[in-house]
Amino acid sequence: MDGAPTDPAGPLPAAAGTLGEFALIARYFTRPTAERQGIGDDCALIDVGDSTLAISSDMLLEGVHFLPGADPHALGHKALAVNLSDLAAAGAQPRCFLLDLALPRADESWLAAFSRGLFELAARHGCTLVGGDTTRTPQGAGGAGPITIAITILGSVDRASYRGRAGARPGDDIWVSGQLGEAALGLALRRGELTLPPAARAACLERMDRPQARVALGRALAGRASAMIDVSDGLLGDLAHILERSYRADDGSAPLGRGALGATLFWAQLPRAGFFDPLPPALQQRCVLAGGDDYELAVTAPPQWRAELAALRCEGAGLTRIGRVEAAPGIRVHAGHEGAGAELALALQSFDHFRSS
Amino acid sequence: MDGAPTDPAGPLPAAAGTLGEFALIARYFTRPTAERQGIGDDCALIDVGDSTLAISSDMLLEGVHFLPGADPHALGHKALAVNLSDLAAAGAQPRCFLLDLALPRADESWLAAFSRGLFELAARHGCTLVGGDTTRTPQGAGGAGPITIAITILGSVDRASYRGRAGARPGDDIWVSGQLGEAALGLALRRGELTLPPAARAACLERMDRPQARVALGRALAGRASAMIDVSDGLLGDLAHILERSYRADDGSAPLGRGALGATLFWAQLPRAGFFDPLPPALQQRCVLAGGDDYELAVTAPPQWRAELAALRCEGAGLTRIGRVEAAPGIRVHAGHEGAGAELALALQSFDHFRSS
Repeated sequence: MDGAPTDPAGPLPAAAGTLGEFALIARYFTRPTAERQGIGDDCALIDVGDSTLAISSDMLLEGVHFLPGADPHALGHKALAVNLSDLAAAGAQPRCFLLDLALPRADESWLAAFSRGLFELAARHGCTLVGGDTTRTPQGAGGAGPITIAITILGSVDRASYRGRAGARPGDDIWVSGQLGEAALGLALRRGELTLPPAARAACLERMDRPQARVALGRALAGRASAMIDVSDGLLGDLAHILERSYRADDGSAPLGRGALGATLFWAQLPRAGFFDPLPPALQQRCVLAGGDDYELAVTAPPQWRAELAALRCEGAGLTRIGRVEAAPGIRVHAGHEGAGAELALALQSFDHFRSS
Repeated sequence: MDGAPTDPAGPLPAAAGTLGEFALIARYFTRPTAERQGIGDDCALIDVGDSTLAISSDMLLEGVHFLPGADPHALGHKALAVNLSDLAAAGAQPRCFLLDLALPRADESWLAAFSRGLFELAARHGCTLVGGDTTRTPQGAGGAGPITIAITILGSVDRASYRGRAGARPGDDIWVSGQLGEAALGLALRRGELTLPPAARAACLERMDRPQARVALGRALAGRASAMIDVSDGLLGDLAHILERSYRADDGSAPLGRGALGATLFWAQLPRAGFFDPLPPALQQRCVLAGGDDYELAVTAPPQWRAELAALRCEGAGLTRIGRVEAAPGIRVHAGHEGAGAELALALQSFDHFRSS
């Protein structure tokens, strides 16, 4: 279950009057498992003979993850892309997937476009559909239930180089792939909250509708990264998952509990498109630091790999060094480059489907 | 994708003015796959090193597969049971599962009961939860979207003895596990369409709410059965999937297309509880032959195994011989025992979420 801690410190207490998604998941669905890795990483790892599989499942709902009337070709792409992104964060090679689909009716033009978007991306990653289920959504007084797309994806992983989210150490560099914030800006554009020049608008909507899972980059990072996660809920929140699950003790024998590690980020180094520059600083920060749906990789790695990671490029995407892991808890964002600028005051929160807003 | 044919005869044509679930799935989601078995069996099989995994995914929606207000403990049980049943039909040993859950709100008492029902059954089968996703359903004018539960299950299978749905041959016996029709009767009871004595009523509701996947029986049948399927949509419809996917040519080299095989069933031999006897014959037939949700196994096997299969009992369930596979297409039901009784005139149809009613 993406996001649920499995560390020995136990489940999160619910915040007063609210129950966050991650706390909810942790409380009722975290159980001991004999499998090699369980709930809490982007993927579960299971050993099959001498091989290891990475498995992940993500669900997209109309009205929650995409707007009613969304382009079905883009939906087919995105439903698979978000799952491929979980494999990318595990450094896994995609293999096959299962699709559960609930639809209000059997609309042929919708199905044709959705399946085209799905299979085009699947073919690009050599990932085949092997099973699943299709259901009609119930018809209620308020209309039909939402289109619901659940995909479970399987990939193969090299167990020796697998790190998951728990391997970050104080002093590690923090890296991010590609550019951040465009998908969140795309959502704001589609909601009519701002306007941008046509080219910038198109770029943001494309990033929101057709995210590119960093599969090749994830595989190239296996053996170099100390921890990896995909940025689906916003950089700060997803980075916090790494920091919460990584421990100070190098031998892993003395977990210090949640929040044991912290980080400093350098705002001036965070990669974003040039069209962010004229936007209000608060909007920039919201999109780049807390915007969901980017599906870039956030990575920690020992400084020894700095030159190699800076030079790495896969399928058009490279890595940018944005900060460092520290022993002191909490995430601080400095306004300038490394070693320069005051700390930014931030009031940002990652996306949580169940948190009261 | 449960139910979609992958035979070389190609997808089904849509019936005039309607598009059945299976045709819908076949048309848009059947693609060639390098995996060992693909869409169309209860499970997909993938080879991992020297091992083989069986994988299946099923989705349950409130208002479609269960009634609003359904007991959450029973739901947790049933959501996993229907997936375990797919593994049973593959003769697989359950290993782990992923859960995608969409809920209108984080209701703690619901979650506690649901997870208890889920984990009690999981523990009985040694099957652990390793991942998934949780989402809040969208709030619309007509209320919140339906509770949606999608589970993907993985098991290990002996590839040498795996048969799937395509191995039936003319002359094979047809067997079914346990008793049929009680789940359908349970639904009719819950809808207030009839009354039964308290003990019979309780038995039917229990069968509907807490089906028992025939996992041990399925494993015992591997190497004996020529084809297996679980009865989720009704005996006639599910048996038809075997007959459609099994070919006359023993070497599998000359598929004759859909419907190449047929079957004769003996109504008097079909196993059902004694409380069916006083019910109207049409209701009995509807429940036993076309009622969904029984999750028994329908099995074909060469007559050489007749004595062995008749003696087989696993976890309280045995097998009853109910008919034979024939070369002539179509399923005929004779009123008496084998070799006796006129043919019944039936107008029954399996459950199909997308077919116009």
